Amino acid sequence: MPATPANPDFERTVRESFARQSLMTLLGAQLMRVAPGEVEVELPFRDDLGQQQGLIHAGVIASIADSACGYAAHSLMPPGSDVVSVEFKLNLLAPARGQRFLARARVVRAGRTISVCRADVLAIADGAETLVATMLATMMQR
Amino acid sequence: MPATPANPDFERTVRESFARQSLMTLLGAQLMRVAPGEVEVELPFRDDLGQQQGLIHAGVIASIADSACGYAAHSLMPPGSDVVSVEFKLNLLAPARGQRFLARARVVRAGRTISVCRADVLAIADGAETLVATMLATMMQR
Amino acid sequence: MPATPANPDFERTVRESFARQSLMTLLGAQLMRVAPGEVEVELPFRDDLGQQQGLIHAGVIASIADSACGYAAHSLMPPGSDVVSVEFKLNLLAPARGQRFLARARVVRAGRTISVCRADVLAIADGAETLVATMLATMMQR
Amino acid sequence: MPATPANPDFERTVRESFARQSLMTLLGAQLMRVAPGEVEVELPFRDDLGQQQGLIHAGVIASIADSACGYAAHSLMPPGSDVVSVEFKLNLLAPARGQRFLARARVVRAGRTISVCRADVLAIADGAETLVATMLATMMQR
Repeated sequence: MPATPANPDFERTVRESFARQSLMTLLGAQLMRVAPGEVEVELPFRDDLGQQQGLIHAGVIASIADSACGYAAHSLMPPGSDVVSVEFKLNLLAPARGQRFLARARVVRAGRTISVCRADVLAIADGAETLVATMLATMMQR
Repeated sequence: MPATPANPDFERTVRESFARQSLMTLLGAQLMRVAPGEVEVELPFRDDLGQQQGLIHAGVIASIADSACGYAAHSLMPPGSDVVSVEFKLNLLAPARGQRFLARARVVRAGRTISVCRADVLAIADGAETLVATMLATMMQR
Repeated sequence: MPATPANPDFERTVRESFARQSLMTLLGAQLMRVAPGEVEVELPFRDDLGQQQGLIHAGVIASIADSACGYAAHSLMPPGSDVVSVEFKLNLLAPARGQRFLARARVVRAGRTISVCRADVLAIADGAETLVATMLATMMQR
Repeated sequence: MPATPANPDFERTVRESFARQSLMTLLGAQLMRVAPGEVEVELPFRDDLGQQQGLIHAGVIASIADSACGYAAHSLMPPGSDVVSVEFKLNLLAPARGQRFLARARVVRAGRTISVCRADVLAIADGAETLVATMLATMMQR
Protein backbone atom coordinates (compact mmCIF):
# COMPACT_ATOMS: atom_id res chain seq x y z
CA MET A 1 0.00 0.00 0.00
CA PRO A 2 1.43 3.42 -0.91
CA ALA A 3 2.74 5.30 2.11
CA THR A 4 2.76 8.56 0.18
CA PRO A 5 -0.71 9.69 -0.91
CA ALA A 6 -0.90 11.19 -4.41
CA ASN A 7 -2.88 14.12 -2.99
CA PRO A 8 -0.92 16.00 -0.30
CA ASP A 9 -4.20 17.57 0.80
CA PHE A 10 -6.00 14.19 1.00
CA GLU A 11 -7.39 14.69 4.49
CA ARG A 12 -9.15 17.97 3.68
CA THR A 13 -10.42 16.50 0.39
CA VAL A 14 -11.88 13.49 2.21
CA ARG A 15 -13.39 15.51 5.06
CA GLU A 16 -15.02 18.03 2.70
CA SER A 17 -16.47 15.27 0.54
CA PHE A 18 -17.78 13.32 3.56
CA ALA A 19 -19.46 16.51 4.82
CA ARG A 20 -21.43 16.63 1.53
CA GLN A 21 -22.88 13.11 2.10
CA SER A 22 -26.25 14.15 3.46
CA LEU A 23 -27.06 10.54 4.39
CA MET A 24 -24.24 10.53 6.93
CA THR A 25 -25.84 13.57 8.59
CA LEU A 26 -29.26 11.91 8.56
CA LEU A 27 -27.86 8.75 10.18
CA GLY A 28 -25.72 10.70 12.67
CA ALA A 29 -22.47 9.18 11.35
CA GLN A 30 -19.22 11.02 11.91
CA LEU A 31 -15.90 10.85 10.13
CA MET A 32 -13.18 10.08 12.65
CA ARG A 33 -9.66 9.07 11.60
CA VAL A 34 -8.43 9.84 8.07
CA ALA A 35 -4.99 8.44 7.19
CA PRO A 36 -3.50 7.39 3.84
CA GLY A 37 -5.58 4.37 2.83
CA GLU A 38 -7.40 4.19 6.19
CA VAL A 39 -10.66 5.78 7.32
CA GLU A 40 -12.93 5.34 10.34
CA VAL A 41 -16.60 6.28 10.53
CA GLU A 42 -18.50 6.21 13.82
CA LEU A 43 -22.23 5.95 14.40
CA PRO A 44 -24.03 6.28 17.75
CA PHE A 45 -27.01 3.96 18.27
CA ARG A 46 -30.40 5.50 17.56
CA ASP A 47 -33.87 3.97 17.79
CA ASP A 48 -34.81 5.12 14.30
CA LEU A 49 -32.06 3.11 12.56
CA GLY A 50 -33.58 -0.26 13.39
CA GLN A 51 -34.66 -3.43 11.70
CA GLN A 52 -37.71 -5.38 12.94
CA GLN A 53 -36.05 -6.49 16.21
CA GLY A 54 -34.74 -3.05 17.14
CA LEU A 55 -31.14 -3.82 16.18
CA ILE A 56 -29.28 -1.54 13.76
CA HIS A 57 -30.46 -2.32 10.21
CA ALA A 58 -27.92 -4.08 7.96
CA GLY A 59 -28.39 -1.22 5.49
CA VAL A 60 -27.06 1.26 8.06
CA ILE A 61 -24.03 -0.96 8.68
CA ALA A 62 -23.55 -1.12 4.91
CA SER A 63 -23.87 2.67 4.64
CA ILE A 64 -21.08 3.50 7.09
CA ALA A 65 -18.85 0.67 5.84
CA ASP A 66 -19.34 1.80 2.22
CA SER A 67 -18.51 5.42 3.07
CA ALA A 68 -15.45 4.34 5.07
CA CYS A 69 -14.25 2.12 2.19
CA GLY A 70 -14.91 4.80 -0.40
CA TYR A 71 -12.94 7.44 1.48
CA ALA A 72 -10.11 5.03 2.32
CA ALA A 73 -9.76 4.58 -1.46
CA HIS A 74 -10.26 8.31 -2.14
CA SER A 75 -7.44 9.22 0.27
CA LEU A 76 -4.93 7.60 -2.12
CA MET A 77 -6.30 9.10 -5.33
CA PRO A 78 -4.82 12.11 -7.14
CA PRO A 79 -6.16 15.64 -6.54
CA GLY A 80 -9.34 16.45 -8.43
CA SER A 81 -10.58 12.86 -8.57
CA ASP A 82 -13.79 11.52 -7.11
CA VAL A 83 -14.73 7.98 -6.05
CA VAL A 84 -17.75 5.78 -6.76
CA SER A 85 -18.68 2.35 -5.43
CA VAL A 86 -18.55 -0.41 -8.05
CA GLU A 87 -19.79 -3.09 -5.66
CA PHE A 88 -19.57 -4.27 -2.10
CA LYS A 89 -20.29 -7.44 -0.16
CA LEU A 90 -21.19 -7.31 3.51
CA ASN A 91 -21.21 -10.28 5.87
CA LEU A 92 -23.19 -9.83 9.08
CA LEU A 93 -21.35 -11.67 11.83
CA ALA A 94 -23.20 -10.94 15.08
CA PRO A 95 -26.29 -9.01 16.24
CA ALA A 96 -25.53 -5.28 15.96
CA ARG A 97 -25.99 -4.43 19.65
CA GLY A 98 -24.13 -1.49 21.17
CA GLN A 99 -24.08 2.19 22.05
CA ARG A 100 -21.74 2.98 19.16
CA PHE A 101 -20.64 1.40 15.90
CA LEU A 102 -17.27 1.91 14.28
CA ALA A 103 -16.50 1.13 10.63
CA ARG A 104 -12.74 0.75 10.11
CA ALA A 105 -11.76 0.63 6.44
CA ARG A 106 -8.43 0.17 4.75
CA VAL A 107 -7.29 -0.19 1.17
CA VAL A 108 -6.18 -3.70 0.29
CA ARG A 109 -5.04 -2.72 -3.17
CA ALA A 110 -4.90 0.72 -4.74
CA GLY A 111 -4.99 0.57 -8.52
CA ARG A 112 -5.08 3.24 -11.18
CA THR A 113 -8.82 2.98 -11.75
CA ILE A 114 -9.95 0.23 -9.36
CA SER A 115 -9.23 0.01 -5.62
CA VAL A 116 -10.23 -2.83 -3.33
CA CYS A 117 -11.00 -2.09 0.31
CA ARG A 118 -11.98 -3.97 3.42
CA ALA A 119 -13.96 -2.66 6.37
CA ASP A 120 -14.63 -4.20 9.75
CA VAL A 121 -17.60 -2.90 11.73
CA LEU A 122 -17.32 -3.07 15.52
CA ALA A 123 -20.15 -2.63 18.01
CA ILE A 124 -19.06 -0.96 21.24
CA ALA A 125 -21.19 -1.86 24.24
CA ASP A 126 -20.07 -0.76 27.70
CA GLY A 127 -16.52 -0.40 26.41
CA ALA A 128 -16.32 -3.92 24.95
CA GLU A 129 -15.86 -4.31 21.19
CA THR A 130 -17.59 -6.99 19.08
CA LEU A 131 -16.95 -7.53 15.38
CA VAL A 132 -20.47 -7.39 13.92
CA ALA A 133 -19.82 -7.15 10.17
CA THR A 134 -17.11 -7.18 7.53
CA MET A 135 -17.17 -5.69 4.03
CA LEU A 136 -15.10 -6.34 0.92
CA ALA A 137 -15.61 -3.54 -1.60
CA THR A 138 -14.49 -2.41 -5.05
CA MET A 139 -14.17 1.33 -5.62
CA MET A 140 -13.51 3.25 -8.82
CA GLN A 141 -11.76 6.52 -9.50
CA ARG A 142 -13.76 9.08 -11.42
CA MET B 1 -39.74 -21.78 -6.00
CA PRO B 2 -42.67 -22.96 -3.85
CA ALA B 3 -46.02 -21.65 -5.07
CA THR B 4 -47.65 -22.38 -1.73
CA PRO B 5 -46.19 -20.37 1.16
CA ALA B 6 -45.74 -22.26 4.44
CA ASN B 7 -47.44 -19.39 6.27
CA PRO B 8 -51.00 -18.76 5.00
CA ASP B 9 -50.88 -15.37 6.70
CA PHE B 10 -47.51 -14.47 5.12
CA GLU B 11 -48.59 -11.08 3.81
CA ARG B 12 -49.73 -9.77 7.19
CA THR B 13 -46.61 -11.22 8.84
CA VAL B 14 -44.36 -9.44 6.34
CA ARG B 15 -46.25 -6.13 6.48
CA GLU B 16 -46.25 -6.06 10.29
CA SER B 17 -42.55 -6.86 10.46
CA PHE B 18 -41.67 -4.24 7.81
CA ALA B 19 -43.66 -1.65 9.81
CA ARG B 20 -41.34 -2.32 12.77
CA GLN B 21 -38.22 -1.47 10.72
CA SER B 22 -37.74 2.10 11.95
CA LEU B 23 -35.03 2.71 9.34
CA MET B 24 -37.58 2.27 6.54
CA THR B 25 -39.67 5.05 8.14
CA LEU B 26 -36.60 7.28 8.50
CA LEU B 27 -35.70 6.78 4.82
CA GLY B 28 -39.31 7.14 3.65
CA ALA B 29 -39.36 3.64 2.14
CA GLN B 30 -42.69 1.91 1.63
CA LEU B 31 -43.57 -1.73 1.26
CA MET B 32 -45.50 -2.22 -1.98
CA ARG B 33 -46.18 -5.67 -3.43
CA VAL B 34 -45.94 -8.76 -1.19
CA ALA B 35 -46.37 -12.10 -2.98
CA PRO B 36 -44.99 -15.56 -2.17
CA GLY B 37 -41.24 -15.17 -2.65
CA GLU B 38 -41.54 -11.67 -4.14
CA VAL B 39 -41.45 -8.26 -2.46
CA GLU B 40 -41.18 -4.69 -3.71
CA VAL B 41 -40.01 -1.69 -1.69
CA GLU B 42 -40.31 1.85 -3.01
CA LEU B 43 -38.38 4.94 -2.00
CA PRO B 44 -39.05 8.51 -3.16
CA PHE B 45 -35.97 10.67 -3.77
CA ARG B 46 -35.02 12.96 -0.91
CA ASP B 47 -32.13 15.43 -0.61
CA ASP B 48 -31.03 14.01 2.74
CA LEU B 49 -30.30 10.53 1.37
CA GLY B 50 -27.35 11.64 -0.72
CA GLN B 51 -23.72 10.82 -1.28
CA GLN B 52 -21.17 13.54 -2.08
CA GLN B 53 -22.60 14.27 -5.55
CA GLY B 54 -26.23 14.47 -4.42
CA LEU B 55 -27.16 11.07 -5.83
CA ILE B 56 -28.84 8.50 -3.57
CA HIS B 57 -26.15 6.91 -1.36
CA ALA B 58 -25.27 3.28 -2.15
CA GLY B 59 -26.11 2.47 1.49
CA VAL B 60 -29.71 3.57 0.93
CA ILE B 61 -29.93 1.39 -2.17
CA ALA B 62 -28.51 -1.45 -0.09
CA SER B 63 -31.03 -0.78 2.69
CA ILE B 64 -34.13 -1.09 0.53
CA ALA B 65 -32.71 -4.02 -1.46
CA ASP B 66 -31.78 -5.85 1.77
CA SER B 67 -35.25 -5.30 3.26
CA ALA B 68 -36.90 -6.44 0.02
CA CYS B 69 -34.71 -9.57 -0.12
CA GLY B 70 -35.27 -10.34 3.55
CA TYR B 71 -39.04 -10.13 3.27
CA ALA B 72 -39.11 -12.07 -0.01
CA ALA B 73 -37.39 -14.87 1.94
CA HIS B 74 -39.60 -14.34 5.00
CA SER B 75 -42.77 -14.69 2.92
CA LEU B 76 -41.92 -18.36 2.31
CA MET B 77 -40.97 -19.21 5.90
CA PRO B 78 -43.22 -21.01 8.39
CA PRO B 79 -45.38 -19.07 10.90
CA GLY B 80 -43.49 -17.81 13.93
CA SER B 81 -40.11 -17.57 12.17
CA ASP B 82 -38.03 -14.47 11.72
CA VAL B 83 -35.37 -13.64 9.12
CA VAL B 84 -31.85 -12.24 9.38
CA SER B 85 -29.36 -11.25 6.68
CA VAL B 86 -26.32 -13.50 6.48
CA GLU B 87 -24.66 -11.46 3.73
CA PHE B 88 -25.39 -9.49 0.61
CA LYS B 89 -23.47 -8.20 -2.39
CA LEU B 90 -24.60 -5.12 -4.25
CA ASN B 91 -23.38 -4.04 -7.68
CA LEU B 92 -24.02 -0.41 -8.57
CA LEU B 93 -24.77 -0.26 -12.29
CA ALA B 94 -25.67 3.34 -13.08
CA PRO B 95 -25.93 6.69 -11.28
CA ALA B 96 -28.97 6.57 -8.97
CA ARG B 97 -30.91 9.46 -10.55
CA GLY B 98 -34.69 9.56 -10.36
CA GLN B 99 -37.79 10.70 -8.53
CA ARG B 100 -38.43 7.20 -7.15
CA PHE B 101 -36.48 3.99 -6.59
CA LEU B 102 -37.98 0.54 -6.64
CA ALA B 103 -36.28 -2.54 -5.16
CA ARG B 104 -37.79 -5.73 -6.64
CA ALA B 105 -36.69 -8.86 -4.81
CA ARG B 106 -37.41 -12.50 -5.43
CA VAL B 107 -36.28 -15.74 -3.88
CA VAL B 108 -33.91 -17.72 -6.09
CA ARG B 109 -33.80 -20.67 -3.73
CA ALA B 110 -35.77 -21.23 -0.54
CA GLY B 111 -34.03 -23.66 1.77
CA ARG B 112 -34.84 -24.93 5.24
CA THR B 113 -32.44 -22.55 6.98
CA ILE B 114 -30.81 -20.60 4.13
CA SER B 115 -32.58 -18.72 1.35
CA VAL B 116 -30.90 -16.96 -1.55
CA CYS B 117 -32.55 -13.87 -3.04
CA ARG B 118 -31.93 -11.45 -5.83
CA ALA B 119 -33.07 -7.82 -6.02
CA ASP B 120 -32.98 -5.37 -8.89
CA VAL B 121 -33.20 -1.67 -8.04
CA LEU B 122 -34.79 0.58 -10.65
CA ALA B 123 -34.65 4.37 -10.78
CA ILE B 124 -37.81 5.94 -12.16
CA ALA B 125 -37.25 9.35 -13.77
CA ASP B 126 -40.12 10.95 -15.70
CA GLY B 127 -41.72 7.54 -16.12
CA ALA B 128 -38.60 5.86 -17.57
CA GLU B 129 -37.01 3.01 -15.65
CA THR B 130 -33.25 2.47 -15.37
CA LEU B 131 -31.65 -0.51 -13.64
CA VAL B 132 -29.26 1.14 -11.16
CA ALA B 133 -28.23 -1.73 -8.92
CA THR B 134 -28.54 -5.47 -8.39
CA MET B 135 -28.17 -7.47 -5.20
CA LEU B 136 -27.49 -11.16 -4.51
CA ALA B 137 -28.24 -11.96 -0.87
CA THR B 138 -28.23 -14.86 1.58
CA MET B 139 -30.94 -14.87 4.25
CA MET B 140 -31.36 -17.14 7.25
CA GLN B 141 -34.43 -18.34 9.10
CA ARG B 142 -34.47 -17.72 12.82
CA MET C 1 -28.05 -4.22 -23.28
CA PRO C 2 -26.61 -3.31 -26.70
CA ALA C 3 -28.11 -5.38 -29.53
CA THR C 4 -25.23 -4.46 -31.83
CA PRO C 5 -21.84 -5.69 -30.62
CA ALA C 6 -18.93 -3.26 -31.08
CA ASN C 7 -16.88 -6.08 -32.60
CA PRO C 8 -18.58 -7.54 -35.72
CA ASP C 9 -16.26 -10.54 -35.39
CA PHE C 10 -17.09 -11.04 -31.70
CA GLU C 11 -17.92 -14.74 -31.97
CA ARG C 12 -14.56 -15.67 -33.49
CA THR C 13 -12.75 -13.43 -30.99
CA VAL C 14 -14.49 -15.14 -28.08
CA ARG C 15 -14.03 -18.67 -29.41
CA GLU C 16 -10.32 -18.15 -30.10
CA SER C 17 -9.74 -16.66 -26.67
CA PHE C 18 -11.67 -19.45 -24.91
CA ALA C 19 -9.56 -22.01 -26.81
CA ARG C 20 -6.46 -20.46 -25.21
CA GLN C 21 -7.80 -21.04 -21.66
CA SER C 22 -5.88 -24.21 -20.88
CA LEU C 23 -7.88 -24.71 -17.67
CA MET C 24 -11.07 -25.22 -19.69
CA THR C 25 -9.32 -28.03 -21.58
CA LEU C 26 -8.07 -29.58 -18.33
CA LEU C 27 -11.60 -29.50 -16.85
CA GLY C 28 -13.23 -30.71 -20.07
CA ALA C 29 -15.35 -27.55 -20.39
CA GLN C 30 -16.68 -26.58 -23.81
CA LEU C 31 -17.85 -23.27 -25.18
CA MET C 32 -21.38 -23.66 -26.53
CA ARG C 33 -23.54 -20.67 -27.46
CA VAL C 34 -21.92 -17.28 -28.12
CA ALA C 35 -24.35 -14.41 -28.71
CA PRO C 36 -24.00 -10.67 -28.07
CA GLY C 37 -23.81 -10.42 -24.28
CA GLU C 38 -24.64 -14.10 -23.76
CA VAL C 39 -22.37 -17.12 -23.45
CA GLU C 40 -22.86 -20.74 -22.40
CA VAL C 41 -20.16 -23.12 -21.17
CA GLU C 42 -20.83 -26.81 -20.65
CA LEU C 43 -18.98 -29.30 -18.48
CA PRO C 44 -19.53 -33.06 -18.37
CA PHE C 45 -19.26 -34.68 -14.93
CA ARG C 46 -15.91 -36.26 -14.17
CA ASP C 47 -14.71 -38.07 -11.05
CA ASP C 48 -11.56 -35.99 -10.81
CA LEU C 49 -13.43 -32.67 -10.38
CA GLY C 50 -14.81 -33.52 -6.96
CA GLN C 51 -14.93 -32.14 -3.47
CA GLN C 52 -14.80 -34.44 -0.45
CA GLN C 53 -18.27 -35.96 -1.06
CA GLY C 54 -17.69 -36.66 -4.74
CA LEU C 55 -19.83 -33.75 -5.94
CA ILE C 56 -18.39 -31.21 -8.39
CA HIS C 57 -16.12 -28.83 -6.43
CA ALA C 58 -17.42 -25.27 -6.00
CA GLY C 59 -14.19 -24.06 -7.59
CA VAL C 60 -15.06 -25.89 -10.82
CA ILE C 61 -18.51 -24.31 -10.82
CA ALA C 62 -16.81 -20.95 -10.27
CA SER C 63 -14.37 -21.64 -13.11
CA ILE C 64 -17.01 -22.26 -15.78
CA ALA C 65 -19.26 -19.46 -14.49
CA ASP C 66 -16.33 -17.01 -14.47
CA SER C 67 -15.31 -17.94 -18.02
CA ALA C 68 -18.92 -17.66 -19.21
CA CYS C 69 -19.31 -14.24 -17.54
CA GLY C 70 -15.97 -13.00 -18.88
CA TYR C 71 -16.78 -13.96 -22.45
CA ALA C 72 -20.33 -12.61 -22.22
CA ALA C 73 -18.71 -9.27 -21.35
CA HIS C 74 -15.98 -9.71 -23.98
CA SER C 75 -18.56 -10.30 -26.72
CA LEU C 76 -19.69 -6.66 -26.37
CA MET C 77 -16.23 -5.10 -26.22
CA PRO C 78 -14.47 -3.39 -29.16
CA PRO C 79 -12.02 -5.30 -31.39
CA GLY C 80 -8.55 -5.68 -29.92
CA SER C 81 -9.69 -5.55 -26.30
CA ASP C 82 -9.23 -8.24 -23.70
CA VAL C 83 -11.20 -8.95 -20.51
CA VAL C 84 -10.13 -9.63 -16.91
CA SER C 85 -12.19 -10.55 -13.86
CA VAL C 86 -12.35 -7.83 -11.22
CA GLU C 87 -14.37 -9.94 -8.79
CA PHE C 88 -17.16 -12.47 -8.60
CA LYS C 89 -19.52 -13.83 -6.00
CA LEU C 90 -20.93 -17.32 -6.27
CA ASN C 91 -23.88 -18.68 -4.29
CA LEU C 92 -24.15 -22.46 -4.17
CA LEU C 93 -27.84 -23.34 -4.20
CA ALA C 94 -28.09 -27.12 -4.37
CA PRO C 95 -25.75 -30.14 -4.42
CA ALA C 96 -24.00 -30.22 -7.82
CA ARG C 97 -25.29 -33.63 -8.95
CA GLY C 98 -25.66 -34.41 -12.64
CA GLN C 99 -24.15 -35.79 -15.82
CA ARG C 100 -23.56 -32.31 -17.25
CA PHE C 101 -23.32 -28.75 -15.95
CA LEU C 102 -24.24 -25.67 -17.94
CA ALA C 103 -23.13 -22.14 -17.04
CA ARG C 104 -25.38 -19.57 -18.73
CA ALA C 105 -24.03 -16.04 -18.49
CA ARG C 106 -25.42 -12.75 -19.65
CA VAL C 107 -24.34 -9.14 -19.34
CA VAL C 108 -26.50 -7.13 -16.94
CA ARG C 109 -24.74 -3.88 -17.73
CA ALA C 110 -22.05 -3.19 -20.31
CA GLY C 111 -19.99 -0.14 -19.43
CA ARG C 112 -16.98 1.46 -21.06
CA THR C 113 -14.48 -0.12 -18.67
CA ILE C 114 -16.62 -2.15 -16.25
CA SER C 115 -19.26 -4.73 -17.16
CA VAL C 116 -21.49 -6.59 -14.74
CA CYS C 117 -22.61 -10.12 -15.59
CA ARG C 118 -24.77 -12.80 -14.10
CA ALA C 119 -24.46 -16.56 -14.59
CA ASP C 120 -26.75 -19.37 -13.59
CA VAL C 121 -25.29 -22.86 -13.38
CA LEU C 122 -27.64 -25.75 -14.08
CA ALA C 123 -27.03 -29.42 -13.33
CA ILE C 124 -28.56 -31.75 -15.90
CA ALA C 125 -29.40 -35.21 -14.54
CA ASP C 126 -31.40 -37.61 -16.72
CA GLY C 127 -32.69 -34.65 -18.73
CA ALA C 128 -33.95 -32.69 -15.71
CA GLU C 129 -32.36 -29.30 -14.95
CA THR C 130 -31.62 -28.03 -11.43
CA LEU C 131 -30.26 -24.58 -10.66
CA VAL C 132 -27.19 -25.36 -8.55
CA ALA C 133 -25.39 -22.02 -8.41
CA THR C 134 -25.62 -18.37 -9.39
CA MET C 135 -22.83 -15.85 -9.92
CA LEU C 136 -22.75 -12.04 -9.97
CA ALA C 137 -19.49 -10.83 -11.50
CA THR C 138 -17.64 -7.64 -12.39
CA MET C 139 -15.47 -7.71 -15.51
CA MET C 140 -13.04 -5.11 -16.84
CA GLN C 141 -11.95 -4.24 -20.34
CA ARG C 142 -8.23 -4.27 -20.97
CA MET D 1 -12.04 -16.95 17.57
CA PRO D 2 -12.08 -20.15 19.65
CA ALA D 3 -8.58 -21.31 20.67
CA THR D 4 -9.86 -24.76 21.59
CA PRO D 5 -11.27 -26.70 18.63
CA ALA D 6 -14.41 -28.75 19.32
CA ASN D 7 -12.78 -31.72 17.59
CA PRO D 8 -9.51 -32.77 19.28
CA ASP D 9 -8.66 -34.73 16.14
CA PHE D 10 -9.37 -31.77 13.85
CA GLU D 11 -6.11 -31.95 11.92
CA ARG D 12 -6.54 -35.58 10.88
CA THR D 13 -10.21 -34.92 10.02
CA VAL D 14 -9.23 -32.00 7.79
CA ARG D 15 -6.31 -33.79 6.11
CA GLU D 16 -8.39 -36.89 5.35
CA SER D 17 -11.22 -34.82 3.92
CA PHE D 18 -8.85 -32.72 1.80
CA ALA D 19 -7.32 -35.92 0.42
CA ARG D 20 -10.77 -36.91 -0.85
CA GLN D 21 -11.10 -33.69 -2.92
CA SER D 22 -10.11 -35.12 -6.28
CA LEU D 23 -10.01 -31.61 -7.80
CA MET D 24 -7.10 -30.69 -5.53
CA THR D 25 -5.17 -33.66 -6.91
CA LEU D 26 -6.03 -32.69 -10.49
CA LEU D 27 -4.84 -29.11 -9.92
CA GLY D 28 -1.74 -30.21 -7.98
CA ALA D 29 -2.81 -28.34 -4.83
CA GLN D 30 -1.40 -29.44 -1.48
CA LEU D 31 -2.65 -28.93 2.03
CA MET D 32 0.07 -27.27 4.08
CA ARG D 33 -0.60 -25.80 7.54
CA VAL D 34 -3.70 -26.88 9.50
CA ALA D 35 -4.28 -25.02 12.77
CA PRO D 36 -7.49 -24.25 14.68
CA GLY D 37 -9.36 -21.86 12.36
CA GLU D 38 -6.42 -21.50 9.96
CA VAL D 39 -5.52 -23.47 6.84
CA GLU D 40 -3.03 -22.99 4.02
CA VAL D 41 -3.22 -24.57 0.56
CA GLU D 42 -0.34 -24.33 -1.90
CA LEU D 43 -0.39 -24.69 -5.68
CA PRO D 44 2.65 -24.82 -7.98
CA PHE D 45 2.26 -23.05 -11.33
CA ARG D 46 1.33 -25.27 -14.24
CA ASP D 47 0.73 -24.39 -17.88
CA ASP D 48 -2.58 -26.24 -17.99
CA LEU D 49 -4.23 -24.04 -15.30
CA GLY D 50 -4.29 -20.92 -17.45
CA GLN D 51 -6.69 -18.33 -18.72
CA GLN D 52 -6.30 -16.79 -22.18
CA GLN D 53 -3.09 -14.90 -21.35
CA GLY D 54 -1.36 -17.86 -19.71
CA LEU D 55 -1.87 -16.59 -16.15
CA ILE D 56 -3.50 -18.84 -13.56
CA HIS D 57 -7.28 -18.85 -14.17
CA ALA D 58 -9.39 -17.03 -11.56
CA GLY D 59 -11.34 -20.27 -11.12
CA VAL D 60 -8.18 -22.03 -9.91
CA ILE D 61 -7.51 -19.22 -7.44
CA ALA D 62 -11.14 -19.57 -6.31
CA SER D 63 -10.74 -23.34 -5.98
CA ILE D 64 -7.76 -23.24 -3.60
CA ALA D 65 -9.17 -20.28 -1.64
CA ASP D 66 -12.54 -22.04 -1.27
CA SER D 67 -10.92 -25.26 -0.05
CA ALA D 68 -8.71 -23.34 2.38
CA CYS D 69 -11.73 -21.41 3.74
CA GLY D 70 -13.86 -24.53 3.99
CA TYR D 71 -11.23 -26.43 5.96
CA ALA D 72 -10.43 -23.44 8.17
CA ALA D 73 -14.13 -23.53 9.13
CA HIS D 74 -14.17 -27.34 9.36
CA SER D 75 -11.22 -27.32 11.80
CA LEU D 76 -13.46 -25.65 14.41
CA MET D 77 -16.51 -27.88 13.91
CA PRO D 78 -17.49 -30.81 16.14
CA PRO D 79 -16.44 -34.39 15.30
CA GLY D 80 -18.61 -36.05 12.67
CA SER D 81 -19.61 -32.83 10.94
CA ASP D 82 -18.95 -31.89 7.35
CA VAL D 83 -18.72 -28.48 5.70
CA VAL D 84 -20.28 -27.02 2.54
CA SER D 85 -19.78 -23.65 0.86
CA VAL D 86 -22.80 -21.37 1.03
CA GLU D 87 -21.18 -18.63 -1.03
CA PHE D 88 -17.90 -16.87 -1.65
CA LYS D 89 -16.72 -13.64 -3.20
CA LEU D 90 -13.28 -13.34 -4.73
CA ASN D 91 -11.55 -10.09 -5.64
CA LEU D 92 -8.66 -10.41 -8.09
CA LEU D 93 -6.04 -7.84 -7.10
CA ALA D 94 -3.05 -8.38 -9.38
CA PRO D 95 -2.05 -10.64 -12.29
CA ALA D 96 -1.49 -14.16 -10.93
CA ARG D 97 2.18 -14.50 -11.90
CA GLY D 98 4.48 -16.76 -9.92
CA GLN D 99 6.04 -20.18 -9.46
CA ARG D 100 3.74 -20.96 -6.54
CA PHE D 101 0.45 -19.75 -5.12
CA LEU D 102 -0.50 -19.87 -1.47
CA ALA D 103 -4.08 -19.53 -0.17
CA ARG D 104 -4.09 -18.55 3.52
CA ALA D 105 -7.50 -18.83 5.12
CA ARG D 106 -8.72 -18.02 8.58
CA VAL D 107 -12.08 -18.04 10.30
CA VAL D 108 -13.43 -14.55 10.99
CA ARG D 109 -16.43 -15.83 12.88
CA ALA D 110 -17.29 -19.40 13.84
CA GLY D 111 -21.01 -19.86 14.42
CA ARG D 112 -23.11 -22.87 15.26
CA THR D 113 -24.27 -23.42 11.68
CA ILE D 114 -22.64 -20.58 9.72
CA SER D 115 -18.95 -19.65 9.69
CA VAL D 116 -17.40 -16.72 7.87
CA CYS D 117 -13.84 -17.01 6.56
CA ARG D 118 -11.33 -14.90 4.77
CA ALA D 119 -8.52 -16.05 2.49
CA ASP D 120 -5.64 -14.15 0.97
CA VAL D 121 -3.93 -15.65 -2.06
CA LEU D 122 -0.25 -14.84 -2.53
CA ALA D 123 1.82 -15.40 -5.65
CA ILE D 124 5.43 -16.32 -4.93
CA ALA D 125 7.85 -15.36 -7.71
CA ASP D 126 11.60 -15.68 -7.08
CA GLY D 127 10.94 -15.57 -3.34
CA ALA D 128 8.90 -12.36 -3.43
CA GLU D 129 5.24 -12.49 -2.34
CA THR D 130 2.45 -10.55 -4.04
CA LEU D 131 -1.15 -10.49 -2.84
CA VAL D 132 -3.09 -11.50 -5.96
CA ALA D 133 -6.57 -12.19 -4.61
CA THR D 134 -8.72 -12.08 -1.50
CA MET D 135 -11.85 -14.09 -0.67
CA LEU D 136 -14.68 -13.56 1.81
CA ALA D 137 -16.68 -16.76 2.21
CA THR D 138 -19.65 -18.20 4.10
CA MET D 139 -19.44 -21.85 5.12
CA MET D 140 -22.09 -24.10 6.65
CA GLN D 141 -21.87 -27.05 8.98
CA ARG D 142 -23.56 -30.22 7.79
